[in-house]
Amino acid sequence: MPTFSRRNLLAGAALLGAGLANRGAFAAVPEAPYPARGPATEVPPPPTGGRAYNPVVTLNGWSAPWRWKNGWKEFHLVAEPVLREIAPGMTAHLWGYNGQSPGPTIEAVEGDKLRMFVTNKLPEHTTIHWHGILLPSGMDGVGGLTQPQIPPGKTYVYEFEMKKSGTFMYHPHADEMVQMAMGMMGFFVVHPRDPGQHRVDRDFVFLINAYDIDPGSYTPKIATMLDFNLWSWNSRVFPGIDHLVARQGDRVRIRMGNLTMTNHPIHLHGYDFRVTGTDGGWVAPGAQWPEVTVDIPVGSMRAVEFTADTPGDWAFHCHKSHHTMNAMGHKVPTMIGVDHHGLAGRLVSLVPDYMVMGERGMADMGEMEMPLPENTLPMMTGTGPFGPIEMGGMFSVLKVRRGIARGDYTDPGWYQHPPGTVAYEWKGA
Amino acid sequence: MPTFSRRNLLAGAALLGAGLANRGAFAAVPEAPYPARGPATEVPPPPTGGRAYNPVVTLNGWSAPWRWKNGWKEFHLVAEPVLREIAPGMTAHLWGYNGQSPGPTIEAVEGDKLRMFVTNKLPEHTTIHWHGILLPSGMDGVGGLTQPQIPPGKTYVYEFEMKKSGTFMYHPHADEMVQMAMGMMGFFVVHPRDPGQHRVDRDFVFLINAYDIDPGSYTPKIATMLDFNLWSWNSRVFPGIDHLVARQGDRVRIRMGNLTMTNHPIHLHGYDFRVTGTDGGWVAPGAQWPEVTVDIPVGSMRAVEFTADTPGDWAFHCHKSHHTMNAMGHKVPTMIGVDHHGLAGRLVSLVPDYMVMGERGMADMGEMEMPLPENTLPMMTGTGPFGPIEMGGMFSVLKVRRGIARGDYTDPGWYQHPPGTVAYEWKGA
Amino acid sequence: MPTFSRRNLLAGAALLGAGLANRGAFAAVPEAPYPARGPATEVPPPPTGGRAYNPVVTLNGWSAPWRWKNGWKEFHLVAEPVLREIAPGMTAHLWGYNGQSPGPTIEAVEGDKLRMFVTNKLPEHTTIHWHGILLPSGMDGVGGLTQPQIPPGKTYVYEFEMKKSGTFMYHPHADEMVQMAMGMMGFFVVHPRDPGQHRVDRDFVFLINAYDIDPGSYTPKIATMLDFNLWSWNSRVFPGIDHLVARQGDRVRIRMGNLTMTNHPIHLHGYDFRVTGTDGGWVAPGAQWPEVTVDIPVGSMRAVEFTADTPGDWAFHCHKSHHTMNAMGHKVPTMIGVDHHGLAGRLVSLVPDYMVMGERGMADMGEMEMPLPENTLPMMTGTGPFGPIEMGGMFSVLKVRRGIARGDYTDPGWYQHPPGTVAYEWKGA
Repeated sequence: MPTFSRRNLLAGAALLGAGLANRGAFAAVPEAPYPARGPATEVPPPPTGGRAYNPVVTLNGWSAPWRWKNGWKEFHLVAEPVLREIAPGMTAHLWGYNGQSPGPTIEAVEGDKLRMFVTNKLPEHTTIHWHGILLPSGMDGVGGLTQPQIPPGKTYVYEFEMKKSGTFMYHPHADEMVQMAMGMMGFFVVHPRDPGQHRVDRDFVFLINAYDIDPGSYTPKIATMLDFNLWSWNSRVFPGIDHLVARQGDRVRIRMGNLTMTNHPIHLHGYDFRVTGTDGGWVAPGAQWPEVTVDIPVGSMRAVEFTADTPGDWAFHCHKSHHTMNAMGHKVPTMIGVDHHGLAGRLVSLVPDYMVMGERGMADMGEMEMPLPENTLPMMTGTGPFGPIEMGGMFSVLKVRRGIARGDYTDPGWYQHPPGTVAYEWKGA
Repeated sequence: MPTFSRRNLLAGAALLGAGLANRGAFAAVPEAPYPARGPATEVPPPPTGGRAYNPVVTLNGWSAPWRWKNGWKEFHLVAEPVLREIAPGMTAHLWGYNGQSPGPTIEAVEGDKLRMFVTNKLPEHTTIHWHGILLPSGMDGVGGLTQPQIPPGKTYVYEFEMKKSGTFMYHPHADEMVQMAMGMMGFFVVHPRDPGQHRVDRDFVFLINAYDIDPGSYTPKIATMLDFNLWSWNSRVFPGIDHLVARQGDRVRIRMGNLTMTNHPIHLHGYDFRVTGTDGGWVAPGAQWPEVTVDIPVGSMRAVEFTADTPGDWAFHCHKSHHTMNAMGHKVPTMIGVDHHGLAGRLVSLVPDYMVMGERGMADMGEMEMPLPENTLPMMTGTGPFGPIEMGGMFSVLKVRRGIARGDYTDPGWYQHPPGTVAYEWKGA
Repeated sequence: MPTFSRRNLLAGAALLGAGLANRGAFAAVPEAPYPARGPATEVPPPPTGGRAYNPVVTLNGWSAPWRWKNGWKEFHLVAEPVLREIAPGMTAHLWGYNGQSPGPTIEAVEGDKLRMFVTNKLPEHTTIHWHGILLPSGMDGVGGLTQPQIPPGKTYVYEFEMKKSGTFMYHPHADEMVQMAMGMMGFFVVHPRDPGQHRVDRDFVFLINAYDIDPGSYTPKIATMLDFNLWSWNSRVFPGIDHLVARQGDRVRIRMGNLTMTNHPIHLHGYDFRVTGTDGGWVAPGAQWPEVTVDIPVGSMRAVEFTADTPGDWAFHCHKSHHTMNAMGHKVPTMIGVDHHGLAGRLVSLVPDYMVMGERGMADMGEMEMPLPENTLPMMTGTGPFGPIEMGGMFSVLKVRRGIARGDYTDPGWYQHPPGTVAYEWKGA
């Protein structure tokens, strides 16, 4: 059984410079687990207590431990300001749970009785809504409507039983636009009572989110409706998103939930897949469609499945091309076809840092070293085994290899292509 | 059988200051029905003539009566400027039908022959397209392409037979961007010939629309593509949208059509449901997916169904969080983490009305009394049994209760939770 | 068998003022086919070599010929700047393939082995990703990740076998935001090995794209995320999009792929249809939904099918009403209800060209002759058999007629409605 680690709790508290304010009042509240190793994916151990299940792997996240108490599975979520490394080179001031945004993934099993302690360490009130879970109206977490808002400094308790397995999430239903724009959300998986049901070999989960953080600043603008400039998975952008590793032949499930303000068509190279579940339940095989891109609506979850039978490095990304760019990519003027030769000289005399960009396209951007504002990621970046990848945002790679051990998620490095299987330059017949 | 009410007609005409211009010419045109009681939902009586059917309930709207004439069901729609209360405290100058936007819901039965009289009292030409209805090309209502545009002051006649049951709508296909941006649209339901087929206990309908009305003004900007600030259902926003009332155990259908410029993921708390119909027809049970959020594309209808087996007050809303805010929510700067103490003093000396907002989040907005421009709704508002709800736009509540009578849609007040079923403050073990 | 036409090659080269730079190096490369007749739809001849199939018809495009070489089907795509007539009166400076944007449709048959020569005549590097095709990782076309970028002036070779039939596309995976915003994309159809499988009578294909070209200019702005002003099918807008012609009773398939930045709900009048295929494969009949609008996500393909049993002129368009408008439609202020009489006089004295628009709606725009900037299309335009159609952008007409010959796609003119089947003016009883 996962245990609560005091070390982790203290590490989190130290990071944020704020311990629990009133230890006495929390005597019976489980300690709140904090992430141990920063933003890297923490593969959870198999459960050693309670009903058996096959844990999911949260991309750049972790699963919350719990404790048993008289037949209840108790979790503790602390809503609070957090620091999130969006990718190496950029850290954002977000709001989240237990020291991170998103908060830890909740994993339970059909039939479990859950008691969720929620402590509010934000400067304003909050609640948690358990999206997709069937529960009594008073546990639904809609501030004002089904419960009082949770004031700063207070801890509230939710209790409900898991009626069905599936793919869910949690987020505030209080000052909702602001709190979700600040990063408050987490994944919630309910495993089937029979661990052989809906079984796969690898089961990845992440939430799709978006931020509007001006270059050079740290805090998201909370009233943006459309013009976000950081399109993220679990509050990470390329090249900060971990790769998905699978053993050749594995049955792979990827579960995604969307809490942005627009649909995200998530595209996987090399495979077709089927949507096998939503936040409403499992999709019957006869109702499934083959797809290579799953369009995930806002406020919706999709689980897709495929058999990883072809080895390689397979791009996996949102297909809206702006969503695979980082900030600065959205307000660049077209220079294509414009002759800068005279112009550049004159501009440089006026603006010493002026650089001529984009006259022949923008591919140079993937390679050049350009001075960027503090705390700002390049618009497009990344280097692969064959050169610049020129991506950002919602982009990662599915790495399928032979000979990977069950349960091993270690990055295997770049794929070694067999001779004659890579596009090649034509040198003449 | 519904009858045409002269009183209603006159009331509508008086409201708008314009009667039918030429009574003589309309001797054989049915009187145009006008809504009787403002924007509240008018539950239609069961039909007493023609083929039997189970009427739908149009949220904050009504169903158009008709008359029989030699085997034809005759309706009369008048396209005209209207005043629509968007929510208490705000009225918009829209264009609609029969004194309202949306126009009245058309209800017919498979096999009915319909004759639609359409009178144009707008300052420009118009047409009506019967979206989803299978009919002769010349009755399709595309101005210029399948018929002449209907000039101001003229009445046109459409005649077609209902080939199949389903969920449809009507709207202009003339100066389409403008006329739909001004609110011209209505629901159109064709009931099955056999009233036992696709039968449910409660059948709600509404159209999803959006307006861009600057704070302090009354008329929508008609060229907005994306940056709408009023996200509405049947031209109403929270708290102006009526609640949906259901008896515990009822089979409930909600039919929605989207005439905005973006997808709306409509989320229901407390239940999973299935999409059972579109504007193309009924979805076979084997093809249905379980969902808790239905993503409704533009120019599409979705009927969702579920059994209301769990009592309570269940939030029902678009899951794009900006769409549950009213105007002013889209251009607010981030103040989170900013210390205003010095700043506020200086600003107040410059701008006497300056208020420091959002330093700790925006939840205060749900409670505070802030001076608003004339004819402008608060960004977030509403009060529930437990305090401020902090919503706007596309938000309502499904109220499921025991002991409600069949056909009773009266608001039953807030849900009384049984002891121990509401999230509670932790006071220590 | 289609043959490579030297005439076409030379025509294309002359048009662009640039032949192949180094003839010697390309001795064994197939000549690159160029479109023969400008932007009109070129119906491909039936294949006379290789496996039999029923060719698709690319709206305002053409299919690429190939040559056989030792059991390989060889194609040659040249990435290069192109001139595209968007509609009569407007030409854009785009990037495309083989002299056009989109590039030619690739048609192959399940089991075919394809060798794709790709020559880069752009000013920056590029690659081609074969979207939806199952192939070795090294042929997947992701620059940096699965292959080196293709430098300007070089030709690369991709080799892969068609594992399954379906609806696919190709586009760069290098400086992707820019290169797709400039128009680089093409359709890719793989026909079933058995030509009787999934057989239809007419099979139309096109890609959905969008451009942001300021009125008066020629080159798309490449960093636009949302505010596009030209919403196009195969880089054409109404009235530049060819009509779709079908014989009454034909089984018709329309395949569409979306490479814009938002969903497009494509609506067909007069029919309901079913989605029978995606870029992931064919959808089982039991999983299909009836629809009248198919919402096509970004990075996705949809094939819809119906039987054209009702004759007429049926509008076929994106249902986002801004997407059936051309540029200038997105920033027009509301004048509805404003009395310009005094204002106009004063404005005309200041701005001699000032025109009072929109006081009574915008329908006048469909008829008026207004001075437009050079190379700019009217916001709404087009004339049908009954007057102004008032459309732009993603709008076309499906023309269903009796007595059209199999394989004939000639525009049959406007539909002649039988007496009594067109909406008519009411003249009194």
